[in-house]
Amino acid sequence: MKARVHVSFKSGVLDPQGKAIGLTLGNLGFDGVGEVRQGKLIELELTETDTATAQKSVEAMCEKLLANTVIENYTIELDDN
Amino acid sequence: MKARVHVSFKSGVLDPQGKAIGLTLGNLGFDGVGEVRQGKLIELELTETDTATAQKSVEAMCEKLLANTVIENYTIELDDN
Repeated sequence: MKARVHVSFKSGVLDPQGKAIGLTLGNLGFDGVGEVRQGKLIELELTETDTATAQKSVEAMCEKLLANTVIENYTIELDDN
Repeated sequence: MKARVHVSFKSGVLDPQGKAIGLTLGNLGFDGVGEVRQGKLIELELTETDTATAQKSVEAMCEKLLANTVIENYTIELDDN
C-alpha cells in the first residue's frame, strides 16, 4: 500500500518560503497570484495491506516524526494499489 | 481558483531526506516501511477563473521557478472552488 502524507503549516503560521515564492512569481511577471503556501509531501511504501491498520500506523508516524503538530497540520491519503 | 503543485524527485534521483525519514521511522519501531520519498507541495491562490489558462500559467511557473526539471517532476491539480 502507498501512503501520501501532506504536511502544511496551520493557517496563521508565517510561511516565509511560500511568501518568497509568491514575491518571486510576481517579479517574474506572473500576475494574479495570491497567497502561496509551501508544504511537504511524503510518500511511503507500506507492506501493511489493511487500510484501517495502515491509517493508524501512519497517523502515529505523523504525530511522532513527520509533522510538528504545534504548527503543522497533516492529511493522509492511502492508495490500495 | 486554487492550484496545488506537487514537485518530487524523478525516479533514480537520490533522495537523502526521504532515506533519512525511512531510517528514522525504522529506528522508532515502525516496521513494514519501504521506500520513502519527500517532495514539495506548493499551494497557490490564483485570480484566473479559466481552467485552461490557469493550467498553462501554472505550467510556466513550474518550468521557470517551482521545479528543477532536470531532476524533478511536477504535477498540477486545479481546484475550481
